[in-house]
Amino acid sequence: MNRICQLFNIKYPVNQAGMIWCSGWELASAVSNAGGLGIIGAGSMYPDVLKIHIQKCKKATNKPFAVNLPLLYPYAEEHIKTIINEGVKIVFTSAGNPTKWTKYLKDNGLIVVHVIANVKFAVKSEEAGVDAVVAEGFEAGGHNGREETTTMVLIPLVRKAIKIPLIAAGGIATGRGMLAAMSLGADGVQMGSRFVASNESSAHLNFKNKIIETNDGDTMLSMKKLVSVRLIKNKFYSEIERLENEGATREKLAEALGKGRSKLGMFDGNLDDGELEIGQISALLKDIKPASEILKEIIDEFNVAVKEIRDLKF
Amino acid sequence: MNRICQLFNIKYPVNQAGMIWCSGWELASAVSNAGGLGIIGAGSMYPDVLKIHIQKCKKATNKPFAVNLPLLYPYAEEHIKTIINEGVKIVFTSAGNPTKWTKYLKDNGLIVVHVIANVKFAVKSEEAGVDAVVAEGFEAGGHNGREETTTMVLIPLVRKAIKIPLIAAGGIATGRGMLAAMSLGADGVQMGSRFVASNESSAHLNFKNKIIETNDGDTMLSMKKLVSVRLIKNKFYSEIERLENEGATREKLAEALGKGRSKLGMFDGNLDDGELEIGQISALLKDIKPASEILKEIIDEFNVAVKEIRDLKF
Repeated sequence: MNRICQLFNIKYPVNQAGMIWCSGWELASAVSNAGGLGIIGAGSMYPDVLKIHIQKCKKATNKPFAVNLPLLYPYAEEHIKTIINEGVKIVFTSAGNPTKWTKYLKDNGLIVVHVIANVKFAVKSEEAGVDAVVAEGFEAGGHNGREETTTMVLIPLVRKAIKIPLIAAGGIATGRGMLAAMSLGADGVQMGSRFVASNESSAHLNFKNKIIETNDGDTMLSMKKLVSVRLIKNKFYSEIERLENEGATREKLAEALGKGRSKLGMFDGNLDDGELEIGQISALLKDIKPASEILKEIIDEFNVAVKEIRDLKF
Repeated sequence: MNRICQLFNIKYPVNQAGMIWCSGWELASAVSNAGGLGIIGAGSMYPDVLKIHIQKCKKATNKPFAVNLPLLYPYAEEHIKTIINEGVKIVFTSAGNPTKWTKYLKDNGLIVVHVIANVKFAVKSEEAGVDAVVAEGFEAGGHNGREETTTMVLIPLVRKAIKIPLIAAGGIATGRGMLAAMSLGADGVQMGSRFVASNESSAHLNFKNKIIETNDGDTMLSMKKLVSVRLIKNKFYSEIERLENEGATREKLAEALGKGRSKLGMFDGNLDDGELEIGQISALLKDIKPASEILKEIIDEFNVAVKEIRDLKF
């Protein structure tokens, strides 16, 4: 029995990443109904909005689903109350210290998974008592670790350092990617970009169409002086890059960034001035389709890939 | 039959990367004798030095070996003459345009492999008539592509774009890494860092010892305004980083870099002022040992990993 399927009580060890502006109740419930783990991304929601999404998700599926909560988010504490009061069973915490909330969440009966990008925080998460860790590589979209360690390197390093179940994230969108991650020692995989380009994602259609047009080299890790974030190279990115090349200070960069850029790009569909957070693997994506079809394709490809590999011997 | 084993007439589809200052005839012949493909790194050699290395390699092994030639190297043309005159059978070209020399090399009976870091050059290499492509991800040590595409993403993209045999490089040092790369569609793997930390590598012992002490986050892609190179963060790196953060020009960076930094670090063992080129996967390496033991471990682990994966089905 796969440890991730067992932990979450799901059919496939695949979870859809909780993402700002892209993963509301529609996407989360679609993924959960298809046998994966859907995750509501709370990092772009006001407390009352999160409450509505959780309630709608509970109505739309009787399968397990989770909420992703960036711990540094201003509404983190209110979100935790909502998550507990609404009876959510699984929470993915990220962007913060796992020692702060894990015990409290566990004491309230939740399964807790923490997202990390380096070995130090993987160990810290295990020590804090989390049930599993998501290790996210440099190629992942959105916020990203300072070490720039890629999935290929991060997974074996984290696997060596901790014993609890390990979910690989970053650069994975297919069944072959899933098999590669599991070969490296992961128990399951998390996919973000693949599910942004789905019918049920709340990303703006302009953004979805942009994603399936990207090629290799079209995303870049930017704003390293503020908080590293991987995004599509557009007009906004070029402005930031120019400032960075000129040696701009944090303050100057923060001013250029302004507020609401990610909503502007990903939710409102402004492809020039908005922040378009997506992973490198978007270059492999060529279609937008229902989450259930995506998941079925992934699992079918995984099973085919296993058959191709199974007789290899040197 | 594995396509890479067939192409090179070797036992295991594993080649040791041709690396400046680290891979002379001793390492190349040791890897070839152990059943992989050893490669002499010509990018740091004068023409007469390369000739001696090839001659010694031929005496040390009767198995196939190759020479790696960066096409932008000032002695590239003389090296090509030496390679042909000395009867080398396989050449790995890198850092340059595959259309320039491939036909000439093929006409002289050589097997030609070109190293690329993006889809565009993979296609260009296939069109130029090369026999195989090495696709090298962002996590690799030394010189590196501008797109920063990681192995996890690059391999499936290149696999989709070309039909000829594909060798994965970057972030691979173990049998599990090899299986992951092959799950993604690679026919074989190339490993650099792992073989730098071998008895037979010509790297200075100080550098080898430094490699096996690194942790995740200890290497970084640097000098992006000149030629991107992944190296260990040391005093030299910090100076370059400070200049980059201040918005230094190419000229200023080139002046700070100076000449002979890589020899100083990797061959002479000056860990403070030298350039220490190595991949992210060095964080996983904890020992220096003979190349034959390294290769045996990789193959043993690969076979074990296949057994673990072979019955997975969802």
